[in-house]
Amino acid sequence: MKVNYPFPNQRTIKKVDLKSHGMMFENGLNITNEYYRINNKAIIYKKPTPIQVVKVDYPARSKARIVEAYYRTPSTTDYNGIYKGKYIDYEAKETNNKSFAFKHIFPHQIEHLKLVHDNGGIAFVLIYYKCVNQVYLIDISVFYNLYKEGINGGRKSITIEKASEVGVLIKQGYTPPLDYLKAIDTYYFNQ
Amino acid sequence: MKVNYPFPNQRTIKKVDLKSHGMMFENGLNITNEYYRINNKAIIYKKPTPIQVVKVDYPARSKARIVEAYYRTPSTTDYNGIYKGKYIDYEAKETNNKSFAFKHIFPHQIEHLKLVHDNGGIAFVLIYYKCVNQVYLIDISVFYNLYKEGINGGRKSITIEKASEVGVLIKQGYTPPLDYLKAIDTYYFNQ
Repeated sequence: MKVNYPFPNQRTIKKVDLKSHGMMFENGLNITNEYYRINNKAIIYKKPTPIQVVKVDYPARSKARIVEAYYRTPSTTDYNGIYKGKYIDYEAKETNNKSFAFKHIFPHQIEHLKLVHDNGGIAFVLIYYKCVNQVYLIDISVFYNLYKEGINGGRKSITIEKASEVGVLIKQGYTPPLDYLKAIDTYYFNQ
Repeated sequence: MKVNYPFPNQRTIKKVDLKSHGMMFENGLNITNEYYRINNKAIIYKKPTPIQVVKVDYPARSKARIVEAYYRTPSTTDYNGIYKGKYIDYEAKETNNKSFAFKHIFPHQIEHLKLVHDNGGIAFVLIYYKCVNQVYLIDISVFYNLYKEGINGGRKSITIEKASEVGVLIKQGYTPPLDYLKAIDTYYFNQ
């Protein structure tokens, strides 16, 4: 719909030394997705952060400058795309604690993922437990049941032990940093 | 990934009188997608406009205010989601002219749609010809061929006549304003 963006395309292949830098989870996912796209394995992108623009200045002829804007609550999840012909949708979360609290994910995001699942898509949550440097893929059906149990008086978080029991551990490496398609193959394609 | 958005969720069901207001194409699509979601027909969202945030102020304790930011070129297309278990991806374009010029769509967006198609997704371009108030769905394979012909010395645009020949006309109405799932059914599901 919009054609006259003044700002140049900033997409570049980022190279990050994972060992020497404390690479953040989000960076790791973005580099992984770029690796998947380049190698024609999957087309998955992070959605832009939703921002409500209030005021824009035009100091130069063709350069719009936003001078007042606010972050908005995302309607859906951070990542979606296509893998092996299937619609993929997920939210990525990290925690400093030994248990991931459900209050750190929006209820409407959980409902969105559940809806994707009900419509035949692959939907899950990736949880990065920083303290043990482990990332788990947890299918939304499983996640949803735990979440509902929490609402009904059960535990309101997912411990690392629980994640390792019901989820799939993501193998970390160099290229790509977080090979979660392997976990998808294991969990959803029985490979 | 981001959990502490200070701004309240602004999603509301918009009601627009299509006849009395000159409803814009994008609004029409957003309302249509909302209608599809509410009625459990498809889960399709417009992606947020990508914005490069440069400077943020925190005037109040919990309210981030972006004071310098710029529009970025979108990596992909405006809309994606899932319908009948299939991954859906499209770009929506409007023109005042009787022919839609290929220069008004980014080459990398065309390549992205082609890639989605090659990976088993449903990918197309919606073109709104304002002068005749008609919207056409054109499958990316067809669009891609015309685009390539343009590069190789052929016509560098798609006329309304051509669109009506190779595309599917979208029925306009009240609920939803632009029922393009019907066009998808016709073209991709032979219904």
